[in-house]
Amino acid sequence: MSLLVTGSIGIDTVRTPYGVSEDCLGGSAVYFTMAAGFFSPVRFVGVIGADCPFDLAEVFAGRDIDLAGLEIRPDSKTFRWAGSYQGNMDDRTTDYMELNVLAEAPPVVPEAFADSEFVFLANTAPALQHELLGQIRNPVFVAADTMNCWIEEHIDDLKALLGKIDCLIINEDEARMLADEPNLIKAAKNVLDMGLGVVIIKKGESGSVMCSGDGEKFMLPAYPAAEVKDPTGAGDSFAGALMGYLAQSGGTDFETLKKAVAYGTVAASFTIADFSLKGLTSIDKTDIDSRFEALRKLTSF
Amino acid sequence: MSLLVTGSIGIDTVRTPYGVSEDCLGGSAVYFTMAAGFFSPVRFVGVIGADCPFDLAEVFAGRDIDLAGLEIRPDSKTFRWAGSYQGNMDDRTTDYMELNVLAEAPPVVPEAFADSEFVFLANTAPALQHELLGQIRNPVFVAADTMNCWIEEHIDDLKALLGKIDCLIINEDEARMLADEPNLIKAAKNVLDMGLGVVIIKKGESGSVMCSGDGEKFMLPAYPAAEVKDPTGAGDSFAGALMGYLAQSGGTDFETLKKAVAYGTVAASFTIADFSLKGLTSIDKTDIDSRFEALRKLTSF
Repeated sequence: MSLLVTGSIGIDTVRTPYGVSEDCLGGSAVYFTMAAGFFSPVRFVGVIGADCPFDLAEVFAGRDIDLAGLEIRPDSKTFRWAGSYQGNMDDRTTDYMELNVLAEAPPVVPEAFADSEFVFLANTAPALQHELLGQIRNPVFVAADTMNCWIEEHIDDLKALLGKIDCLIINEDEARMLADEPNLIKAAKNVLDMGLGVVIIKKGESGSVMCSGDGEKFMLPAYPAAEVKDPTGAGDSFAGALMGYLAQSGGTDFETLKKAVAYGTVAASFTIADFSLKGLTSIDKTDIDSRFEALRKLTSF
Repeated sequence: MSLLVTGSIGIDTVRTPYGVSEDCLGGSAVYFTMAAGFFSPVRFVGVIGADCPFDLAEVFAGRDIDLAGLEIRPDSKTFRWAGSYQGNMDDRTTDYMELNVLAEAPPVVPEAFADSEFVFLANTAPALQHELLGQIRNPVFVAADTMNCWIEEHIDDLKALLGKIDCLIINEDEARMLADEPNLIKAAKNVLDMGLGVVIIKKGESGSVMCSGDGEKFMLPAYPAAEVKDPTGAGDSFAGALMGYLAQSGGTDFETLKKAVAYGTVAASFTIADFSLKGLTSIDKTDIDSRFEALRKLTSF
């Protein structure tokens, strides 16, 4: 079934204890698409300025990505972000951020994409996510990401959005903040009560927890990584493989969602093993599938 | 097969956001035995003073516990500990600790226990663990716990002990400290290189990781607990059910160890649901088995 993503395209500079990656391609929609593309065609919606040095058609070569929703604004500049990771990479600091084109009007969803069945709204202002979603006629399954600043400053917009989507994919600290509840299982319940069918809580090195409105639960550790070079894009890769697998299988029952979370976990483990997109561009679907089986063996008893 | 535990018996006072439990029975050997007793007979080795108000034979009634190794010293006082937990109970502070009888000579392992096959050395000075282990003739599988103060101040004794045992069960911060390595998977490898066959790293709310010297790995999330009233004894209950299951099954291969870790996880989840030993005394083996199956369902995909 068809899968659409809306999100950012960025020029990133990342510093970690393993080195520096300057002016490399990043952004939520890019990481998402690179991971989702292992499973399903992707309809891509995003906006860049004329200064963007990357040819996305070339970047995504070998994957079935429809770039009809990529808008290039001649008088605008591309989003830029620079960040640093320290120690065991649990925390990152933003060195600078230039919203540029992301501070302008959002891109338009092409008419040919309006019948999309699976939709992922990457992190941005909830009002914009709402506006983008409004351009899809009758989606089957919509997931979104959000972050602390929207929870703190745009909670009403966010709650309105949660009533319109099926699944929120969120970090554990954000889940606790959104639910105003320190216990993660209770927090998941509170978030589900905002109108969602499913909430997926990412816990970084400690894996993820998924809870459904029907009371089903699933917990999965992260794939054990001896080498973490650059955690940037891990969450978007997770969401990409998850949604890509759902679109490929066409199902949204809890057993299918469990497998989707496992594929998300596997994609994220490849992303963090190298800088920028290299962890995902240096592998193929066979690598994904064999790590999926390894993850099953690592966690079954 | 026979299972022996050496560890503390304490009079505990615990404060959590859910209330206060004053002068209740605690100690590593007590929590261990209460959990192990669901699976296997236990040979108990520990020491108390004449002031101890608890009759352990009564406490363990219904379980097959041999108290021949319980020593009551008429002129000594029982170990006392008081602690407080705050917020989401990740951290605890020790309000006071009186070592009392634990600062004297360790108990003697009765001759009838010298043929024990499975042995757990609960946390104490590594030199004492060594001395206790020396009284067991030919054990099949020995596991031990330790803590930060022994790693910091008695590292040579601890390393000597690790060369003589099969399995170390340790918290994640302690594993990082012992290995001098922030990445947990690398830390596990470093600890295994100190002479162990297996290391099991406890991550609290995030579950546990087990690694073998043969390169096998197993990861299991904690059972999702909506109510955590008192985390005291969680680690010792984990070790108790783990070792109890091993002694019952008689195996120490990796597949058996995986199931043992799952039973340990289940026992710990019952312990933390109520104060002191109540979480373990209010259930039976059927409750343990049905939560074991629930944990399998929660984590399989």
